[in-house]
Amino acid sequence: MSAHVPTESLFLGTQGIAALPGDARGFAYGDGLFETLRVHRGAMPWWSMHMARLARGAARLALALPDAAQLEREALALFPDAADGVLKLIVSRGGGGRGYGPDPDAPPLWRLSRHPLPAPAREGGLVLRWCDTRLAVQPALAGLKHCNRLEQVLARAEWNDAGIDEGLLRSSDGDVVCATAANVFVLHGTQWSTPRIDRCGVAGVCRAWVLAETGATEARLTPDDVQSADAVLLCNAVRGILPVARLDARTWLPHPAVADLRRRLARAHPGFAVDQEVA
Amino acid sequence: MSAHVPTESLFLGTQGIAALPGDARGFAYGDGLFETLRVHRGAMPWWSMHMARLARGAARLALALPDAAQLEREALALFPDAADGVLKLIVSRGGGGRGYGPDPDAPPLWRLSRHPLPAPAREGGLVLRWCDTRLAVQPALAGLKHCNRLEQVLARAEWNDAGIDEGLLRSSDGDVVCATAANVFVLHGTQWSTPRIDRCGVAGVCRAWVLAETGATEARLTPDDVQSADAVLLCNAVRGILPVARLDARTWLPHPAVADLRRRLARAHPGFAVDQEVA
Repeated sequence: MSAHVPTESLFLGTQGIAALPGDARGFAYGDGLFETLRVHRGAMPWWSMHMARLARGAARLALALPDAAQLEREALALFPDAADGVLKLIVSRGGGGRGYGPDPDAPPLWRLSRHPLPAPAREGGLVLRWCDTRLAVQPALAGLKHCNRLEQVLARAEWNDAGIDEGLLRSSDGDVVCATAANVFVLHGTQWSTPRIDRCGVAGVCRAWVLAETGATEARLTPDDVQSADAVLLCNAVRGILPVARLDARTWLPHPAVADLRRRLARAHPGFAVDQEVA
Repeated sequence: MSAHVPTESLFLGTQGIAALPGDARGFAYGDGLFETLRVHRGAMPWWSMHMARLARGAARLALALPDAAQLEREALALFPDAADGVLKLIVSRGGGGRGYGPDPDAPPLWRLSRHPLPAPAREGGLVLRWCDTRLAVQPALAGLKHCNRLEQVLARAEWNDAGIDEGLLRSSDGDVVCATAANVFVLHGTQWSTPRIDRCGVAGVCRAWVLAETGATEARLTPDDVQSADAVLLCNAVRGILPVARLDARTWLPHPAVADLRRRLARAHPGFAVDQEVA
């Protein structure tokens, strides 16, 4: 893209601003929500699904949202070259000062940023590890893509080995929840299942697509349920569906059910077509 | 103070900067720690205790800290008028971009800000309520004054009644942990006790002072332990020690043990002398 096109924009309410205010509650408390999504040829095929999730999160946090039409317009303005890429949106609670009490009248502080597509996934499937960091059980925040992400930062910092692609996280109760930046599905026979996200974890947009497409069950999954699966996949709204080839010592061969799902995803969201062909 | 004296300053590593970068990890993930402390006549009596806590938190999060001498110098520079007030410090992980993985070589992004002293506490003692929001059990973050504070934001948003001063929080297990912005101590006979903060809650600097001063026990406290107490106090490093007069229907008369502790605190930290006399 041209060096003259900005790769981020910031807003307070409806007004564009030059910089984050120092007293942003997003900076002080992580008091916000975010969305990360794949842009295809300058368009956002799953925009409405991301906005629906954002609205659900904002309702639970009583967070004011930007004007929907302005938000979409400004998001598209970061891709004037109709390129492929990644869009990240952070909507944080407005109002500064000190103290946890929110100001219900403060307009939201929001940021849009453009990023390159991630590198193609490892050929043959991802290599995973188990993380030691456990996710706390917090139903009040479960499912939300909120900006309190120290658990994920700690989990991702556990390894620094380019041979490992992702880490699987368990809750403090020992249930399997997700990867650091993706949801997880496991296949037993012809039945897919994925962890419930009513106590921790993020209700991923790609997870919702896979759920609807496969009729997967939402369940409490143990590490044994993963080890014993016939196939495992990770998914998110930037990478799509990624087959898992290894988890510590356990290996999986490519499974036709995963390949089939990837083809269906490529038809549902054209941005995923290229990667799905490559892998 | 003069309108020409700035009330905040921002730094990346050792360099002063004009504004928060939009891709600050503190804004994206709450990936940082903070300290809030009382400044007395331009000095910071408990500075070393705050820095010790900050260092413990930084070690646990593998967070780079600012140069200690520069940090203290820049903090004092916000009080050139030798006034009383509140200093807030946020130290967040440097390095931007997308993705949870931290960059171990990135210098920290930190912010200092000056705030007025809070209004004097309610005469006769604080009025408290129980919060419905529960604190998740997360030993990896327990004790830290980190910037993932959505739980506190949700808890503080539960009431909007100037007749209520603070809310008490329980963990998801039902144990009493703290108030939204203070630690709590309860007195039974001559024995003080305070919740352990090994599973959630913040290891407050004033809490440490009260622990050392009273020989309080750190225990799992139930709501009944609070209800049945002979006296209850809240404490933090901005307000000092605050007696509690009411919790829902339960009331407490002023207790000499609390008054005595407040006098001792006023001797230990001169900034608290004024408030302790007033109340």
